[in-house]
Amino acid sequence: MSGCGAETGLMSVDQALATIVDRVHALASESIPLRQALNRYLAADIHSEIDLPLFSQSAVDGYAICSNQSVLENSKFELIGEIRAGQDQNLQLENGQALRIFTGAKIPEGTTTVARQEIVTPLSPDQIQINIALEMHADIRDIGEELSRGQLLANQGQHLSVGAIAALAMAGVQQVEVYQFPKVAVVITGDEVAKSIDDFSTGKIFDANAPLIQAWFEQQQQNVNIYHVEDTELALQQLIQQLKQECDVILTTGGVSVGDYDFVRPVALAQGFQQIFWKVKQKPGKPMLFAEYQRSSGDFCYLLGLPGNPAAVFVGMQIYASTLLQALQGQPKLPNWFSATLKQSVKSDSRERFLRMYAYFEQGQLWVENLSKQQSHMLSNLMSANCLIRIPENQVLSAGSTVQGLFL
Amino acid sequence: MSGCGAETGLMSVDQALATIVDRVHALASESIPLRQALNRYLAADIHSEIDLPLFSQSAVDGYAICSNQSVLENSKFELIGEIRAGQDQNLQLENGQALRIFTGAKIPEGTTTVARQEIVTPLSPDQIQINIALEMHADIRDIGEELSRGQLLANQGQHLSVGAIAALAMAGVQQVEVYQFPKVAVVITGDEVAKSIDDFSTGKIFDANAPLIQAWFEQQQQNVNIYHVEDTELALQQLIQQLKQECDVILTTGGVSVGDYDFVRPVALAQGFQQIFWKVKQKPGKPMLFAEYQRSSGDFCYLLGLPGNPAAVFVGMQIYASTLLQALQGQPKLPNWFSATLKQSVKSDSRERFLRMYAYFEQGQLWVENLSKQQSHMLSNLMSANCLIRIPENQVLSAGSTVQGLFL
Repeated sequence: MSGCGAETGLMSVDQALATIVDRVHALASESIPLRQALNRYLAADIHSEIDLPLFSQSAVDGYAICSNQSVLENSKFELIGEIRAGQDQNLQLENGQALRIFTGAKIPEGTTTVARQEIVTPLSPDQIQINIALEMHADIRDIGEELSRGQLLANQGQHLSVGAIAALAMAGVQQVEVYQFPKVAVVITGDEVAKSIDDFSTGKIFDANAPLIQAWFEQQQQNVNIYHVEDTELALQQLIQQLKQECDVILTTGGVSVGDYDFVRPVALAQGFQQIFWKVKQKPGKPMLFAEYQRSSGDFCYLLGLPGNPAAVFVGMQIYASTLLQALQGQPKLPNWFSATLKQSVKSDSRERFLRMYAYFEQGQLWVENLSKQQSHMLSNLMSANCLIRIPENQVLSAGSTVQGLFL
Repeated sequence: MSGCGAETGLMSVDQALATIVDRVHALASESIPLRQALNRYLAADIHSEIDLPLFSQSAVDGYAICSNQSVLENSKFELIGEIRAGQDQNLQLENGQALRIFTGAKIPEGTTTVARQEIVTPLSPDQIQINIALEMHADIRDIGEELSRGQLLANQGQHLSVGAIAALAMAGVQQVEVYQFPKVAVVITGDEVAKSIDDFSTGKIFDANAPLIQAWFEQQQQNVNIYHVEDTELALQQLIQQLKQECDVILTTGGVSVGDYDFVRPVALAQGFQQIFWKVKQKPGKPMLFAEYQRSSGDFCYLLGLPGNPAAVFVGMQIYASTLLQALQGQPKLPNWFSATLKQSVKSDSRERFLRMYAYFEQGQLWVENLSKQQSHMLSNLMSANCLIRIPENQVLSAGSTVQGLFL
């Protein structure tokens, strides 16, 4: 363990997150087809352009009935035809008449109630009998009973989950105004990182960071460009110079500490980036850099520099990159931490720790269990981890303590 | 409300799910690149082909030291060179010598400990001083300390989450043996469903089901073919005849009840499908059909027939389609229900209900709050719902009761 926790004046995790939320400018919006909008965020309220349901319809397979008086047990009605879902027959029922009707079909004019088929006996091709007394207006879905035309259907900022997309589709929405998804470039630094199996040789390691980040974006239906760059100031400078003009976000891994070959920060500063913060009092991931560059157009390019250890990259993506990407999409919000109960005591540290743990429910209570192999160069416990838990600095955390976390 | 809950002999939700889990045959496996394997399941154990770490390496930027005795305060060492991450210099340190070393660099032969740069003063280009006493073997990540070559890295059945992919990549895994993802065809029935905005006319409705199902699969990095079919026996029969030869799963929406135009079940049976179950004691989604067809090759095509109401489709996908797809991928498991506490009392029914609710944490306790507009033709509460909650049949569920559910 390097005793770097002793370093003073570091920013706390909460301060770092609040800074991202306060500082980042949302991107512009764009109009895209609803079917391509999964996991995006609405940039404007949507008011319904239709009534929902769009017309009064039968809730069952049965018979539409017109009766000037209460429908008593064993009432008989003249059967004058049939209407199916999707049809529009412009029929008018008169007193004493009935029409065969199916679920979702438009309720004909004159209908006073609907009799579901289970309580009806057809007596002849032209006559039916209702076997039990029937209340008025039974089994009818009324026009607009869910939502009236002009009513608010979805708020600005609404996350377009699978369910939200279905609900918008049902209201006839085909196109949505959403925040742009940031254009992201990922820069993997470090001469030790083998770019491919052919590039592998003694002293090098297999790269977990590019696959991790690629999969993390794929999980959100996004692709990113990944660049590998050698540990020279010139190579990094040329790449940053190009990317700062093209991207909304540059995510780097490695080279962000104070080593002789840690070029990310000096290159970023030399390229005109303003440091927003550097170094967070956390483990893993202390030497994290957050900086911004303002283009002559007025737009910003943000640089999130993560340390190269894969555990630091994992935490950086789950906690910081997600907060940054949401803020860029008009959602300046802190992570929505859950609270859970520790199953075993956990060792605190002079820096706040993020531990990979296993969470499970028991009688409405969320418990979290520690996993071994938490060091920053180890990842294999991610096979069983399902959450990241915050362990505050310098505290005694016995079994039964309440902690905050995020599901993975 | 159609009083269909009164119907006797219906299968329970738990029975229906257990039947899927017991009955479904897993698909064969295939070998694919790790980078394309997000959210798939391993079909075989993976033993590590390398040690992790692959070689002993420095955990810090500092100096590799060779000392036959304890390193005391203000010890001096001869500085003989430098080694960076990714390099392999085949250097041999002798007693009294030191080498500049960086995080992740290979520990040279002869190293007894590492001094992090914060505790070292360079005295000249050839000499350094260690300012404080140093323990043996400090700040060294040992070869194989996370995992030895040949050790079990991941189990058959492992879900390939973002973290699991990163952990496998770090162990040099490039190709994985996973269960095939089922080939799925989606069949949307119902003449009332407008196929597009041009197809829209009075009596028709905007289709929520195709967008819902498409987004649901997209969330899991999968595409499906969606077919719209008119409500005639012939059209449905021709389509099923073709799909049963090509697909592992046919998902249908609508046309699965007992109405005069409900052709899914009769067509499936006529096409050689064996009914596994039909009708589940649940709301929404009672007239659900599950059937299988065995091809002459011995392979199976499963048909999951969901009712046409969008809420029934939503529940059907979250609860039943997910269980079916997992079983086909070698994971015959019931849903992993959480337990939570009801904030308000909830009305029970003669059938088990699935309610869309809002879940939130308070002091390690998960609470769920009811939402309005729960009817099966309504979806707008999915803008705020984040879970599906099971309300058992015929029970008094007061505030404070424990219920089961799934996050959305």
